[in-house]
Amino acid sequence: MAKGNLPKLHSDFSVDCVIFGFDDEELKVLLVERNEPPFKAWKAIPGNLVYDQEDIDAAAERVLYELTGLHNIFLEQFYSFGSIDRHPQGRVITVAYYSIIKRNDNGLHPVSGYAKKAYWWPADNIPKLAFDHNEIVDKALQTLRHKISYEPIGFELLPEKFTLTQLQHIYEAILQKRIDKRNFRRKMLSYGLLTELNQKQKGVSHRAASFFKFNKSRYRSLKKKGFIFGLR
Amino acid sequence: MAKGNLPKLHSDFSVDCVIFGFDDEELKVLLVERNEPPFKAWKAIPGNLVYDQEDIDAAAERVLYELTGLHNIFLEQFYSFGSIDRHPQGRVITVAYYSIIKRNDNGLHPVSGYAKKAYWWPADNIPKLAFDHNEIVDKALQTLRHKISYEPIGFELLPEKFTLTQLQHIYEAILQKRIDKRNFRRKMLSYGLLTELNQKQKGVSHRAASFFKFNKSRYRSLKKKGFIFGLR
Repeated sequence: MAKGNLPKLHSDFSVDCVIFGFDDEELKVLLVERNEPPFKAWKAIPGNLVYDQEDIDAAAERVLYELTGLHNIFLEQFYSFGSIDRHPQGRVITVAYYSIIKRNDNGLHPVSGYAKKAYWWPADNIPKLAFDHNEIVDKALQTLRHKISYEPIGFELLPEKFTLTQLQHIYEAILQKRIDKRNFRRKMLSYGLLTELNQKQKGVSHRAASFFKFNKSRYRSLKKKGFIFGLR
Repeated sequence: MAKGNLPKLHSDFSVDCVIFGFDDEELKVLLVERNEPPFKAWKAIPGNLVYDQEDIDAAAERVLYELTGLHNIFLEQFYSFGSIDRHPQGRVITVAYYSIIKRNDNGLHPVSGYAKKAYWWPADNIPKLAFDHNEIVDKALQTLRHKISYEPIGFELLPEKFTLTQLQHIYEAILQKRIDKRNFRRKMLSYGLLTELNQKQKGVSHRAASFFKFNKSRYRSLKKKGFIFGLR
């Protein structure tokens, strides 16, 4: 189509990343200390403006890397935030991404001077953040909780062989509540997604628990059919 | 926090609406014929730029109304599209919303001169659309299909009393494939979401089917617990 003499548009939008980290017990969120105005010295989730000639998915990866040193993280877009007053410098829509990873305290080093520090912070005790970042973290947590209500997750957060207690800890950390152990086991096993191994824990003071591994082909088949239809 | 002498940012972003309409048999998508450049006279989904002082959710409602005459539609944000070249006038991110409604061919009248016409178009035969709107419609359809794989939907698309065949038609229209009748019935009934009424169809040439109604309290309870956990 002809471009004609149409006026050139401007744009300002940002990307923000909510990275959840899990380490067998506790769910944390990746925060940075901002080193530039606005909100200089405030805690924030890693985020920044998108370049003119940059795809938004690529921008999310770049910004996460520049502010925290993390890369090769699978980022999923989950919501865009566009309240009128969310940015003090003008109207900025932000496209928010999230991920949940196995936490590793090493390797957090801001590459750009835009962040002073990067650190993990307990998800159940998030401080007041810059911009509308508290709202963004809340929405990411809701999205994650919604997701585990219809799709088993968390297998990439566990070692190859794991106990049901380890799996339960992921659900408890995300839901931020205790789950009944017997119900959890019964339901989890009923999906056919876990294969019990002929191995038990060794050297534990309590009764040794069995190890399980994840049945990936069953998972893929359920995912394809739709869990709600596949689970019966 | 202090605003200081920070530069004022500009912004250009739009909203686009994918409205699916169902009428007992066929799934359609609401399209408009554009009356303004760029892409003048092209078919498109209803969309336009967001005003400076306008919330994005409010913009989606306004744009849908102005271009099609539809209002009071529950719009859900599902994805933002921000490829570098998606808009010929510059970088414009669009926040996309979707909905599925009971179709009614009356009441489609563009209010603004920005659209010349509004009409329903079969979802399985979408023509080439303006901008990246084909991609947006595809993603909305994927989102809808994903949603029905984990959460029963469609009850608001049916009359208060309906037959299982009517419900099956919704799933077939969305999935764009035939579903095995016996399997569908067995699974749908197993969720406890449908209450069989003591009433059957009248005046039909085939064997009269039972009417069902939707069990809203069971639905709310499953939704709260998470379907995957609730369904067993």
